[in-house]
Amino acid sequence: MEIFAYQKGEKNIRENIVFEEIPDLLKQENVTIWIDVDVRNQDDLRVAENLYGNIFGFHHLTIEDCREERNQPKVEEFDDYLFFIVHGITNKANTANFLTKELDGFLGKNFVVTNRNENFRSIDAVKKRIRINPKIIERGAAYLLHQIFDRLVDYYMPLVDDFDIAINELEDRVYAMETADTSILEEIMDVRRSVARLKRVSTRQLDVLYKISHGEFPQIPENFLPFYRDVHDHLLRISDMAESYRDLVSGLFEIHFSVTANKTNDVMKFLALISATMLPLTLLTGIYGMNFQNMPLIHSSYGYFITLGLMILIFLALLVYFWRRGWFGK
Amino acid sequence: MEIFAYQKGEKNIRENIVFEEIPDLLKQENVTIWIDVDVRNQDDLRVAENLYGNIFGFHHLTIEDCREERNQPKVEEFDDYLFFIVHGITNKANTANFLTKELDGFLGKNFVVTNRNENFRSIDAVKKRIRINPKIIERGAAYLLHQIFDRLVDYYMPLVDDFDIAINELEDRVYAMETADTSILEEIMDVRRSVARLKRVSTRQLDVLYKISHGEFPQIPENFLPFYRDVHDHLLRISDMAESYRDLVSGLFEIHFSVTANKTNDVMKFLALISATMLPLTLLTGIYGMNFQNMPLIHSSYGYFITLGLMILIFLALLVYFWRRGWFGK
Amino acid sequence: MEIFAYQKGEKNIRENIVFEEIPDLLKQENVTIWIDVDVRNQDDLRVAENLYGNIFGFHHLTIEDCREERNQPKVEEFDDYLFFIVHGITNKANTANFLTKELDGFLGKNFVVTNRNENFRSIDAVKKRIRINPKIIERGAAYLLHQIFDRLVDYYMPLVDDFDIAINELEDRVYAMETADTSILEEIMDVRRSVARLKRVSTRQLDVLYKISHGEFPQIPENFLPFYRDVHDHLLRISDMAESYRDLVSGLFEIHFSVTANKTNDVMKFLALISATMLPLTLLTGIYGMNFQNMPLIHSSYGYFITLGLMILIFLALLVYFWRRGWFGK
Amino acid sequence: MEIFAYQKGEKNIRENIVFEEIPDLLKQENVTIWIDVDVRNQDDLRVAENLYGNIFGFHHLTIEDCREERNQPKVEEFDDYLFFIVHGITNKANTANFLTKELDGFLGKNFVVTNRNENFRSIDAVKKRIRINPKIIERGAAYLLHQIFDRLVDYYMPLVDDFDIAINELEDRVYAMETADTSILEEIMDVRRSVARLKRVSTRQLDVLYKISHGEFPQIPENFLPFYRDVHDHLLRISDMAESYRDLVSGLFEIHFSVTANKTNDVMKFLALISATMLPLTLLTGIYGMNFQNMPLIHSSYGYFITLGLMILIFLALLVYFWRRGWFGK
Amino acid sequence: MEIFAYQKGEKNIRENIVFEEIPDLLKQENVTIWIDVDVRNQDDLRVAENLYGNIFGFHHLTIEDCREERNQPKVEEFDDYLFFIVHGITNKANTANFLTKELDGFLGKNFVVTNRNENFRSIDAVKKRIRINPKIIERGAAYLLHQIFDRLVDYYMPLVDDFDIAINELEDRVYAMETADTSILEEIMDVRRSVARLKRVSTRQLDVLYKISHGEFPQIPENFLPFYRDVHDHLLRISDMAESYRDLVSGLFEIHFSVTANKTNDVMKFLALISATMLPLTLLTGIYGMNFQNMPLIHSSYGYFITLGLMILIFLALLVYFWRRGWFGK
Repeated sequence: MEIFAYQKGEKNIRENIVFEEIPDLLKQENVTIWIDVDVRNQDDLRVAENLYGNIFGFHHLTIEDCREERNQPKVEEFDDYLFFIVHGITNKANTANFLTKELDGFLGKNFVVTNRNENFRSIDAVKKRIRINPKIIERGAAYLLHQIFDRLVDYYMPLVDDFDIAINELEDRVYAMETADTSILEEIMDVRRSVARLKRVSTRQLDVLYKISHGEFPQIPENFLPFYRDVHDHLLRISDMAESYRDLVSGLFEIHFSVTANKTNDVMKFLALISATMLPLTLLTGIYGMNFQNMPLIHSSYGYFITLGLMILIFLALLVYFWRRGWFGK
Repeated sequence: MEIFAYQKGEKNIRENIVFEEIPDLLKQENVTIWIDVDVRNQDDLRVAENLYGNIFGFHHLTIEDCREERNQPKVEEFDDYLFFIVHGITNKANTANFLTKELDGFLGKNFVVTNRNENFRSIDAVKKRIRINPKIIERGAAYLLHQIFDRLVDYYMPLVDDFDIAINELEDRVYAMETADTSILEEIMDVRRSVARLKRVSTRQLDVLYKISHGEFPQIPENFLPFYRDVHDHLLRISDMAESYRDLVSGLFEIHFSVTANKTNDVMKFLALISATMLPLTLLTGIYGMNFQNMPLIHSSYGYFITLGLMILIFLALLVYFWRRGWFGK
Repeated sequence: MEIFAYQKGEKNIRENIVFEEIPDLLKQENVTIWIDVDVRNQDDLRVAENLYGNIFGFHHLTIEDCREERNQPKVEEFDDYLFFIVHGITNKANTANFLTKELDGFLGKNFVVTNRNENFRSIDAVKKRIRINPKIIERGAAYLLHQIFDRLVDYYMPLVDDFDIAINELEDRVYAMETADTSILEEIMDVRRSVARLKRVSTRQLDVLYKISHGEFPQIPENFLPFYRDVHDHLLRISDMAESYRDLVSGLFEIHFSVTANKTNDVMKFLALISATMLPLTLLTGIYGMNFQNMPLIHSSYGYFITLGLMILIFLALLVYFWRRGWFGK
Repeated sequence: MEIFAYQKGEKNIRENIVFEEIPDLLKQENVTIWIDVDVRNQDDLRVAENLYGNIFGFHHLTIEDCREERNQPKVEEFDDYLFFIVHGITNKANTANFLTKELDGFLGKNFVVTNRNENFRSIDAVKKRIRINPKIIERGAAYLLHQIFDRLVDYYMPLVDDFDIAINELEDRVYAMETADTSILEEIMDVRRSVARLKRVSTRQLDVLYKISHGEFPQIPENFLPFYRDVHDHLLRISDMAESYRDLVSGLFEIHFSVTANKTNDVMKFLALISATMLPLTLLTGIYGMNFQNMPLIHSSYGYFITLGLMILIFLALLVYFWRRGWFGK
Repeated sequence: MEIFAYQKGEKNIRENIVFEEIPDLLKQENVTIWIDVDVRNQDDLRVAENLYGNIFGFHHLTIEDCREERNQPKVEEFDDYLFFIVHGITNKANTANFLTKELDGFLGKNFVVTNRNENFRSIDAVKKRIRINPKIIERGAAYLLHQIFDRLVDYYMPLVDDFDIAINELEDRVYAMETADTSILEEIMDVRRSVARLKRVSTRQLDVLYKISHGEFPQIPENFLPFYRDVHDHLLRISDMAESYRDLVSGLFEIHFSVTANKTNDVMKFLALISATMLPLTLLTGIYGMNFQNMPLIHSSYGYFITLGLMILIFLALLVYFWRRGWFGK
C-alpha cells in the first residue's frame, strides 16, 4: 500500500504517510491523495478494507468487488465518489491468448484509490512521474486518474497491432497450406477467441469511458472531460480494430475451406488423369493377354509393335483431350 | 407454505403464524413478512390462492401466472406491489441440457411472497440464514428479496463455467476426430441449444434486473438499488459469457467441417498415390503378359530382370515426384 | 353479420338487433355493442361498409383495409376509435406451411367491431361464452376485445410447440441420413420458411400489443392494461421460441453438411482401402503373368505357393497398417 | 413540362398555363398548382431551373439534386416547402435486374412540383384522373402528392410478388440439378443482388414515409397523415417481403451446396461399389493367370468352373454386404 | 504553411501574411482566415504548434491529435471552435488496397485551420478557386470548410464505383475458374478487406457529418446546414454502397465454393465413368487370360470374336446406363 499526498504550492509530494493522518488529509481541500493498494499482500488487504469501510465509508458491495476477480468493467456513482473497474492488459498476453487484469478504484473530490492484485505498468509509470515532478497530481484527482487510464489504454496498442501481423501470417500460411494438418485451425481458433475477448473488453470499457467523458458524473470537472474523451477515442479505435479483426479471422476459415476444396479438386483431377490413361491401356493388354488360340495379329511378327503403337496413340490422344479440358492448369 | 415474520427490535423471527394473523401483521409498519409457497402441495395451493386473492388482493392474472409454468422472466408494477418472475437453474441442468425453473413472487412494502413448484437452493439458504440470524429480514422486504435473487444468480455460475470446459473438450475431440461418426455433432448441437437457452434466459432476466436496479419501482428503496445493481452485474457477466460461448460453439461446426475436409483430402491423396504407383506398373506387366509371339526381350534370359528393374525405377521416380509435390507432409 | 348488445344490469345479451337501432344504442353509455362481420357474405359486406362509413364514420382507408387481405398487423388511433389488424392461425396451418388469417376491427368506447373473411375459433368461443354468461361483455368493450385477442394468441401455442417436435424429428433424420436424397432438404426448407413467417407475424403483432398494453391509447382503460400485457407476454414467448427455432433450423443445414461430408469421407476411406489392398496384389499377379521365359520360381513347384504366401503377407501387413491409422473406426 | 392549376369551386382544371402566370397563381390561397417537369427535354430543363431558382426560390442544392441521378430517397424540410426524392420501379425491371428510377419533387402549401427524367406510370395515371375529375387536386397539394406516392408504391407489388415465384422456381431447379453447370449460381446471384437492392430502396423509402406520415412536417395537414401512413404500411410490407426473400435466397446457396455434396457422395459410392466388386475378382483372375507350372486346379477340367463359381459367390457376397450397408438407398 | 485572408468588400484575397498579423486579423469580424499547414515540413510544424497553442489557444490534446496519424474521424466542440478529423482517399488507393489519409482541422467563427501530412487534391482545388475568385471565402469560414469537405468526399466516388467493376470481374473469373489456384482467393480477400475499410471509414465520417449537419454546433450558421447535409447524403450513398459490396464479396466466397464443389463432382463423375466402363471389361479379359486348360470357347476359332463382341455390348450398355442417369449433362 503506497500513499501519496500533495498540497498545493508545495514542491514535493509526501509519501511516508501514516494511516492515521488520512482522515485529516481528506478534509483539507487543497490536498490530493492517491492510495494504491496491492491486495496480494494480505496485510495491505486487511488495512485497506478497514480504510475503505471505516474511513472512506465506501459501499460494502464495492469493497466486495475489490476483493473478487473476474468483474466486468463498469463505473458506478455513489454519493460523493465514483467506483470504477477497468481492465488492463497483462504482460503475458499475446494474440493467441489475450488476457486482461482488473484495476478497481475510487475517485473522490480530492482522492484516488487504486486497488489491484497484479502489477500495472501504467501505475508504476505514473508513480515515477509524480515523484520527479508532482505536476500531474497538482491538477487534482480527476486528472491523476486520467493519467492512469491513458497509459493503461496505451499499453493495449502494441498487442492490438500484433493481431494484424498474426492474422496476416496465418492467412499466408492458409494459402500456402504446406502441411495439411489441423494445427493451423487450432491457431486460427485461438486468435479468434482472443479477438472476441478484445472486442468484449473494449466494448465494455468504451461504455465506462463514454459515461465518464460525457459529463455524467460531478466528480469529473468539466474542463477534464476532453482528457477522458481522448481515452475514449483511443478505446474506440481499439474496438473498431477488434471488429475488423473479427471479420478477417472468420474469413480465414472460409479461405481454409476453399483452399482445401481446391486441393482436393487437384488431387481428384490427378487421380482421374492416371486412371483415365492407365485403365484403357491395361484393358488393351488384357485383351491380348487372353488365351484364345485364334486371335488376329497374335501370330504376326508386327502384332506386338502395332498394338504398342496403338497404345501410345491412345495415350497421346487422352493427354490432348485432358489438356484441352484445361486439366493441366496447375 | 412457510410464513416468516419479524418485528423490529425482536431477537428472533416468528415462524408458527396462523393464516388469520396475516392481515393484522401486514398492517404493522415495523413487521416484515415472508410467505414461501410450494404449489406442488395441493392444500398449500388452495390456501395460497385464497390468500393472494382475498387478503393481498393480487391481480388475478398474476395468480394465474403463479399457477402456470413456462412463463418468461418479467417484472410488473401494480398499485402497491411488484410481481416478478425469475428463473433459477435446476439441479439436473448440465451443459448438454440447460434447464431452468420458475420462481414467481410479489414484493410489497413490508412483505415478500415467493411461489414455486420446485426446490430452490437459494430459498433454502436464505431460510437457514434468517433462522440463525434475522439480520437479513430486519433490513426489510426489498433487502430480503435481494438476498434470494443474489443466491439464485450465483447458482448459475458453476454451470456457466462448465460450458467453457465442455466446449474446450468438444473442440479437442473435433481436432482429434478419432471416430468419424456423427455423435460428436449431436453433442455440439446439444451444447449449442443449451447456450442459446442460457443466453435467452439471462437476457430476459437482465431486463428484469435492469428495471429493478435503476429505480423504476417505488417498492425498492433507493439505498437498496446498489444491491440489485450487483445482481444485475452478475447477470451481465453470465449474458456476456453466453454470447461468447455461442461464438465458440458455432466455430466448432466450422472446425469440424475443415477437419473433415482435411481428412478427405488426406484419404484422396493416399488413394491417388496408390493408384499412380500401381496402375502404370500393372500396365507394364500387362504388356509383357500379352501373348504375341514376337516380343522383344521375351525370350532373352535378362528380359525379366530388365523389366523388373524398370518397374522399380518407375516406382522410385513416382515416389520422388510425389515427395516433391509435398504429398508426404503427413 | 352478428350484432350483440348488452345493457348493464340486464340478465341476457340481446342478439336480434335491427340495423336501424345501432345509432341509438351507440349513444347509450351503459350499453356495449359487438358487431361481427364475415365479409365473405356479399350482402353483409355491403351492409357493413355502409355501417362503417355512415354510422360509425370510420376513416375510408380503414374500410379499404377491411376489404383487402394481406395486411400486416397494426394498430392505429383515430379520434374516438382504434383500428387494429391482427393475425390468427388458420386450421390448416402446419409446421411445413405456416399460414395466418387476418382479423380486422375497431374498438370504441362502447363498441367492438370485428371484420374477417375466415372462420375464427377465438370469435366463436367468445360468442358462445357471452351467450351463456354475459359477464365478459359486461366489463366493457376493451375487455371483450382482450378476450378475443387472448384466445386468438392461445391458438398459436399448439402449433408453436409442434415446431419443436418437427425440428427434432428432422434432426434425427439428418443424423441417420438413411436416404441420401434431397427430399429432407426440401422439408427443412419448408420448416425454415414457416419459422420465418411465424417470427415475422409474431414480431409485428408484438409491436401492436406493446402499444396497446403500454397505455398509449385512451380507448383502453388503465385497469385493463394488465390483461393486454398478458397477451403481450404470450406473444413474447412465441416470438422467443420462433427465434430459437430459427437457430435450430439453420443448424440443421450445418449438420446435414457435416453428416454428408462424414459419409463421403467414409466412402473414400473404403475405396482407398479396397484399392490399396487389391492393386499391389494385382501387380504381383501381373508380374508372374508375364510371359518371360526365364523367370525365377516360375518352374519351381513351390513358386506358386511362395507367391501366394507373399500376397497374403502383404495383405495382412496392409490391414495392420490401416488399422493403426484408425481407418476401421467405424 | 405540364402545369395544372385548379381553383376551388371550378369545374375543370386549367392546363394551358403560361409561365408568367405562376407567381400570381401561387399567391392565391384557394388555387392548387402541379408542375410536372421531364428534364430529358433540354428546353424544359432550362425553363424549370429558372422557375425553381427565381420564382419558387428553392435552395440551389435541391436544384442540383434534381439535375443529378443516383440520389438516395430522402425528404428535407425547408422554410416553406419540402424537398423529396423517391424511387419508382422501371418498366424494364425484373427479378434478375431490379432497377429503380428517381422522382424528385417539392411540396408547398398549395403546389406540388415533380421532376424526373423517366416516364412514370403513376404520374400519368394521376394526370388522367384529374383531367376526368379534379376531385383529387381539389383536396390540396398534400393529397395530390399522396395519390402519386400511392400509385408509385403500388407498382412495386407485381414485381415484389414475382420474386416469390422466381425464388421458388430456382429452388426447384436446385433440387433437380439436372445440369451441374454453374449457370444456376449466376441466376441465384442475380436475384440475390436484386433482392438486396429492393431491400435497400424500400428501407430508405420507409424512412422518408415514416417522417412524412408521423407529422414531422407542417406542409402535410394532420388529416392527411393517415393517407401517408397507408403508403408507409405498403412499403413496410414490401420491406418485410424483401427481408424474407433475402433469407430464402441465401438458403438457395446452402441447398445448392448440400445437393452437390449429396451428388458427390452418390458418385463416390458408385465408384466404390464398382471398385470393390471388380478389383477382388480381377485379382483372382490375375492369380490364375500367373504362369507357374505347378498350380492347383489349373490342369483339372473343373478348375475353371470352380473358380468362376467362386467369383460369382464373392460378387454376390459383396452385393449383399453393400446392400446391408444401405448403399443402394438410391 | 499557407495563409489566406479575405476582407469583405475587397477584390482579392491576401496571401503574403506574416505570422505576426494573425492575432490582429482574427479580431476583425469581417475577415475570414484560412491557414493550411503541411506538417511534413518540420519548420511549419514548429511554427504551427506555436500558433495553435499560443495564438489560437487550442486544447493541447487536439494539437497532439494533429501531430499523430491513425486517428478516427471525429468532431469535437470546444468553447469557440470545432476540432475535426476527416479522412480523404489517397491517390494510390485502389480496390485491392483501400487507403485513406487524415485531414485534421479547426473551424472558428472567422477562421479555418487545416492540418495534414499528405497532399489533398480537394485542398489544392479550393485554393485554386479562391485565388481566381474569392467568392467561396467571402461566404465565411463554415462555407469554406464545406467546400473542402464536399470535394474530399467527391474524390471517393470514382474508387467506390471501381469496386463494382472489380467485384463483377472477380465474379466472372470465379464462374470461369480456369485456373484452380488460390490466387483468386487472395484477390477476393483483398477486396473484402478494402470494402470493410471503406465501410468503416464512411460510417465514422457519416457520424461526424450527421452531427455537423444537424445543427449541433453554433460554429455552423443554420443557413449552411443544407450544404453539410448534402455532404452527409453523399457519404450515406458511399456507406450504402459499401454495405452492398460487402454482401457481394462474401457472396463470392460462396460461389467459389459451389463452383469448386461442382468441378469436383464433375471430375468424380468422369473418374467413375472411366472406372465403371474399364474395370468390368478388364475383369473379362482377366477371365480369359487365366491359364486353365479346360475353358469353354478358348479353343474355338470364334471365341475371341464372341468375347470381343460381348465386351463391346457391355461397354455400350454401360454408356446407355450412364447417359440415362444424366452423367453426360456436361
